[in-house]
Amino acid sequence: MLINCAAYREGHKLADLTPGEVGAYLDQSDTFVWVALRDADAAELEPWQHLFKLHPLAVEDALKGQQRPKIDEYGNDLFVSMHLVDWGGAEIQRGEVAVFVGAGYVLSLRQHSSQHFLGVRERAEREPELLRQGPSFVLYALMDAVVDRYFPVVDLLEAELEEIEQSIFTNGAARDNIQRLYALKRRLMQLRRAVAPMLEMLSKLHGGRVPPVCSKSEHYFRDVADHLARIHGAIEAVRETIATAIQVNLSMVAIEDSDVTKRLAAWAGIFAMATAFAGIWGMNFEHMPELKWVWGYPAALGLIATVSGLLWYRFRRAGWI
Amino acid sequence: MLINCAAYREGHKLADLTPGEVGAYLDQSDTFVWVALRDADAAELEPWQHLFKLHPLAVEDALKGQQRPKIDEYGNDLFVSMHLVDWGGAEIQRGEVAVFVGAGYVLSLRQHSSQHFLGVRERAEREPELLRQGPSFVLYALMDAVVDRYFPVVDLLEAELEEIEQSIFTNGAARDNIQRLYALKRRLMQLRRAVAPMLEMLSKLHGGRVPPVCSKSEHYFRDVADHLARIHGAIEAVRETIATAIQVNLSMVAIEDSDVTKRLAAWAGIFAMATAFAGIWGMNFEHMPELKWVWGYPAALGLIATVSGLLWYRFRRAGWI
Amino acid sequence: MLINCAAYREGHKLADLTPGEVGAYLDQSDTFVWVALRDADAAELEPWQHLFKLHPLAVEDALKGQQRPKIDEYGNDLFVSMHLVDWGGAEIQRGEVAVFVGAGYVLSLRQHSSQHFLGVRERAEREPELLRQGPSFVLYALMDAVVDRYFPVVDLLEAELEEIEQSIFTNGAARDNIQRLYALKRRLMQLRRAVAPMLEMLSKLHGGRVPPVCSKSEHYFRDVADHLARIHGAIEAVRETIATAIQVNLSMVAIEDSDVTKRLAAWAGIFAMATAFAGIWGMNFEHMPELKWVWGYPAALGLIATVSGLLWYRFRRAGWI
Amino acid sequence: MLINCAAYREGHKLADLTPGEVGAYLDQSDTFVWVALRDADAAELEPWQHLFKLHPLAVEDALKGQQRPKIDEYGNDLFVSMHLVDWGGAEIQRGEVAVFVGAGYVLSLRQHSSQHFLGVRERAEREPELLRQGPSFVLYALMDAVVDRYFPVVDLLEAELEEIEQSIFTNGAARDNIQRLYALKRRLMQLRRAVAPMLEMLSKLHGGRVPPVCSKSEHYFRDVADHLARIHGAIEAVRETIATAIQVNLSMVAIEDSDVTKRLAAWAGIFAMATAFAGIWGMNFEHMPELKWVWGYPAALGLIATVSGLLWYRFRRAGWI
Amino acid sequence: MLINCAAYREGHKLADLTPGEVGAYLDQSDTFVWVALRDADAAELEPWQHLFKLHPLAVEDALKGQQRPKIDEYGNDLFVSMHLVDWGGAEIQRGEVAVFVGAGYVLSLRQHSSQHFLGVRERAEREPELLRQGPSFVLYALMDAVVDRYFPVVDLLEAELEEIEQSIFTNGAARDNIQRLYALKRRLMQLRRAVAPMLEMLSKLHGGRVPPVCSKSEHYFRDVADHLARIHGAIEAVRETIATAIQVNLSMVAIEDSDVTKRLAAWAGIFAMATAFAGIWGMNFEHMPELKWVWGYPAALGLIATVSGLLWYRFRRAGWI
Repeated sequence: MLINCAAYREGHKLADLTPGEVGAYLDQSDTFVWVALRDADAAELEPWQHLFKLHPLAVEDALKGQQRPKIDEYGNDLFVSMHLVDWGGAEIQRGEVAVFVGAGYVLSLRQHSSQHFLGVRERAEREPELLRQGPSFVLYALMDAVVDRYFPVVDLLEAELEEIEQSIFTNGAARDNIQRLYALKRRLMQLRRAVAPMLEMLSKLHGGRVPPVCSKSEHYFRDVADHLARIHGAIEAVRETIATAIQVNLSMVAIEDSDVTKRLAAWAGIFAMATAFAGIWGMNFEHMPELKWVWGYPAALGLIATVSGLLWYRFRRAGWI
Repeated sequence: MLINCAAYREGHKLADLTPGEVGAYLDQSDTFVWVALRDADAAELEPWQHLFKLHPLAVEDALKGQQRPKIDEYGNDLFVSMHLVDWGGAEIQRGEVAVFVGAGYVLSLRQHSSQHFLGVRERAEREPELLRQGPSFVLYALMDAVVDRYFPVVDLLEAELEEIEQSIFTNGAARDNIQRLYALKRRLMQLRRAVAPMLEMLSKLHGGRVPPVCSKSEHYFRDVADHLARIHGAIEAVRETIATAIQVNLSMVAIEDSDVTKRLAAWAGIFAMATAFAGIWGMNFEHMPELKWVWGYPAALGLIATVSGLLWYRFRRAGWI
Repeated sequence: MLINCAAYREGHKLADLTPGEVGAYLDQSDTFVWVALRDADAAELEPWQHLFKLHPLAVEDALKGQQRPKIDEYGNDLFVSMHLVDWGGAEIQRGEVAVFVGAGYVLSLRQHSSQHFLGVRERAEREPELLRQGPSFVLYALMDAVVDRYFPVVDLLEAELEEIEQSIFTNGAARDNIQRLYALKRRLMQLRRAVAPMLEMLSKLHGGRVPPVCSKSEHYFRDVADHLARIHGAIEAVRETIATAIQVNLSMVAIEDSDVTKRLAAWAGIFAMATAFAGIWGMNFEHMPELKWVWGYPAALGLIATVSGLLWYRFRRAGWI
Repeated sequence: MLINCAAYREGHKLADLTPGEVGAYLDQSDTFVWVALRDADAAELEPWQHLFKLHPLAVEDALKGQQRPKIDEYGNDLFVSMHLVDWGGAEIQRGEVAVFVGAGYVLSLRQHSSQHFLGVRERAEREPELLRQGPSFVLYALMDAVVDRYFPVVDLLEAELEEIEQSIFTNGAARDNIQRLYALKRRLMQLRRAVAPMLEMLSKLHGGRVPPVCSKSEHYFRDVADHLARIHGAIEAVRETIATAIQVNLSMVAIEDSDVTKRLAAWAGIFAMATAFAGIWGMNFEHMPELKWVWGYPAALGLIATVSGLLWYRFRRAGWI
Repeated sequence: MLINCAAYREGHKLADLTPGEVGAYLDQSDTFVWVALRDADAAELEPWQHLFKLHPLAVEDALKGQQRPKIDEYGNDLFVSMHLVDWGGAEIQRGEVAVFVGAGYVLSLRQHSSQHFLGVRERAEREPELLRQGPSFVLYALMDAVVDRYFPVVDLLEAELEEIEQSIFTNGAARDNIQRLYALKRRLMQLRRAVAPMLEMLSKLHGGRVPPVCSKSEHYFRDVADHLARIHGAIEAVRETIATAIQVNLSMVAIEDSDVTKRLAAWAGIFAMATAFAGIWGMNFEHMPELKWVWGYPAALGLIATVSGLLWYRFRRAGWI
């Protein structure tokens, strides 16, 4: 579905175009056409492929989706694939944006995502002095928008982790915590698979040899790369903390179990002692003189109570009860 | 065993050849011979070795099998070894494909595998504009076919992992889960030993210095490398998740064990209390006035029941029962 | 808020300047202006941006804060972002310093931190032979001050770790230790996120290609990098030790639990034996001849005591009690 | 001890030489001398050092042994040190081979090993077209022989691991398994210390800049490197599997322990219930009407049996018994 | 404190010098001055700093100590900092050696260590043909001496590890083992912090671009690097083995605990059964015909004994007792 299509010269919009009018603006100097599509199929993409001479492999990748984030150079043109990440309740939803960039055109194709990039075009049109950098600035603006949408997801993951950390040293929360940590790890890994290859791909757009079409916007790509590096750093930190938290959680289970074992041992000891004493005076020997004493029974009870008390005191001091 | 053998010029098939006719087509410009063999031995490979001047080390590696996936340059010729991966029920079966590539020939040799590559030749012949890239396109097409067959295996491993994850937080499934995780890890490692070296080898076919025979198909090799990188990413993710799942599984065992210990402690406490009380009133002292009371027995039962109830209530609140 | 602003020539201060006077000193050879701001907003930074022609992306990064430590080249100018680390009781507080460096100016902007850099200026002014290196020496001096403030934080973390290590093999301290180790790990990770990217960024200032504005102070940047590498080494060592300590702590819990289980087993055995014997002589069979013996009762007590003693001795020797 | 010594020209043996005759063959074009020593001391090596102008550091390393596998260039000459690995029962025995290679000579010195290389010389002499590559081919042949002898050791380690895996999910085998896994890890590490540095050193003999003396045999060194990379891959796979197996083994212990705890809890519950009931009817209250009933005793037994049965059934269903 | 100071030409000692005489020997071709200091302060180092034009940063680093091992180039001069490692009983003591190297001088400064380097000078003077390489050979000789002193420390750590391994599978040694493993890890990490950065720094002295002052001794620095790589390899192996041993130790605790639990369960079962039986026949029902039988009591005892025996046999066979 065509979202919009317009021609720009020196940073200013010339006109909104119908697909048929695009050809007239190609090959004009300092002019480029910016096309935005969504959920297009092969048939819809086909005329654009001819118009912009897109490489068949790039078109195939864009249509098939399921790509790793990547940047491929085809001569002077670029094909860029990025992941869109939506936090859809419990699970992370993943969409994709493919961007084709050449000297005179930018074509973005959004698949399987409800996130739109209208704000990107508006903002770009408000800054003609930047937009005059040409297609590479549009690519930057799209990348920046994609990366900006990673931040709230990272924040949510970090908040979730902090919430788990609140209860990690609470008795009885271990089962819940381990489940939440595992689920958090899953979501983190999904985000990481969007971020890590993109970071790698961004390193091709600044620093060393840069594709000619991007050379004017190098500082801007470096800035996106810095933001992404921050996200990546946060992901790695959360990842390491989850690993530690899982270990700590296991330790807490073991400690709690150990506490219960101690308590069990302590009370079992006290009652076993009482039962053994009672059992002894419950034996049926005929000649057990203490059984005849008037004070025998209270004395027995007193003895049992005293020993129980002593044991209880010792266990208390040892921290078992 | 010779599967087929044909000569191609400018992307079109000239003729199917018998081995004896091959020599006539070598050294013609823009022409190459594509030979497919399977399960060949030294004797069968020998005439081809002479015809195409294959390096003895490459021939030895192809015949011996058991190679790591690799790409070796011998002057302007290439020797490529890849793993074929079949999911044969519980275990992953491994076959191998060796490909010899030179300016005028491609020779593929498939060993120990029932997977065939007939579809590759058909598809290539339907796209003469691509096939005119020459032997390197055939190499690409074979690699692409090999890599495409890794995807369903990865999908099966991911599905298996998800199935295990369903029961990872279920009580009593720990033994089964740990066995399945271990088996999954084994299979994953086998696949990884096919994929990781191949990813490394593919990096020699695009980007930096590329063997001259492959230079026309560089974009295509990069595309295969991208696909393989995706598979590799998926393998690494599964691998990390398995490691986490094994840890989580251990935690679940510990938590479950701790729950049982608590329950054991709780019930042991209640019964031990009852037994101790009963033991006391079962002692044979003569002077135990309560034994003579009419309501002594019901009172004793009531006391025992009340204390048991109180204990039960406390343990319940503590989440032990 | 403007802290101070002065012009320097050949290492000596020419004059303290008001913002309006700065323009006159720019573009004079061997002269530079050193401006220090704190907690500035866009409005306050705006005149400086025009005066020094700061790149809008750099200004945006400086104002927004939350940057990874980084160094960005904009033509011949540099933008440097560093983290300030304060040990605010339990948690590490983080501030930021942004430094803009050009041929004729240095502008430092401190955000969210109570640490000041007055000492840096004083020391620099006392060493004119070094300050004549120009803006790059000021950048070095600021970096050196930032890095010097990491050392006490590392020392505190190391001291905390050593304190935990004192009690890691003490019975009953496991819960406390694991909590402290986890908290320590958190703080360590925060410090690491300040240090690791800064180490990476410093490698751009010495050794290979160095930004021209920094070339005179290369030895000095290498020295800061050495200090930071030492801090990084200490952080990595603490990190690895924490991981080991968490494992060891788990082992200690398991060992302690095992000791309690042994003791429980031992005493349960002794009392269960006594109770079983007592129970047998408490049976109501009519024909139990030993019940009629005069010495029956003492003999029974003696037997129970003897067997208990034997068991106790055996368990003692086995180290269970 | 001198094993043998011969001169070769264009791949053919000229003559077996005594040490005194060697000098006459040096500096003849296309001719080289191949000397094999074993367990030599400084005195024995000294004449060869003068003859071939071996560097004192290389000689010292060869005599002292205990070297990491390494390759050192001394001008146009090479010094190579490799580990020989024998599977001597439970422990891996380690010998060493030092090889000195120059334009006109190869000297191999085998220390502390009963493995011999006679087969290498025979095979080389049977292939004069390869041996004419000169000393570098001899070096290749020796390396190939060393590496070939690693394969059976890896196979034994893999077989041992598979054997352990058979019993890893068997109850009661945990202690044995953990001991065997630990021992296996030890042996694996020993082999790895032979293989990993050798792999690194082999990368100097093919691909990039290659020592001139080796340039003719580059394809052959790459082939050895491929074989070694396969061994290294197998070692890494075994290593990772051992780590997983140790974790799994711990899980199995925990699961088994948990099963025993459950069983203990179940039977303790049943018997404690029975004992408590019996204790109650064993109390000596005068007014316990059920004691006088004719069917009191069978009813009591029946009640105890019924409750025991119910408990047993519940525990059975819960999988505890 | 000045230890000694002498001038050398072409490998031979010219004269022992007083500090005042040194200036006369500088700038003479093929001549250098070798000065050894220990525990010097700024005042003592100051004249040498002027004489040899040492860079202030290098001097500051040498005096402050606490450096990471490193090598810094200042123009054509070098500053090298290394750690000395003494095994002072339980803890590793650390000293430092700083070496300043220029075309005409070597100055070594030893801090906080009782190890001396007199042997280095003697040996160097006995080998004039090597010492004529100049200051770089002295640097080599000092490095070689430092590295040689790491070997016995590594050997001690390896011996300690082997001793721990002897008792790792012994019951009841877990607590002791875990303490020793932790202490060993600490010491290992200290040694590693001396070795790892030194290995990195040595790579600057051979292979690629080498500081001009060191170029004559490149083979010698490579030899030191080889030795250090061996030490590093041993450290990494010990480190990995410690990690495995800690895991194995935990497994052994769990296995031992599991054995005790089984035993406890078994004996608890036997006694609980006996007590329950005795309790039943201890009930006070009037109509319990077996109580009146003459053989009732022996039969009851027999039954209890038989069931106990059967249980014992079953537990025995299951390996629980």
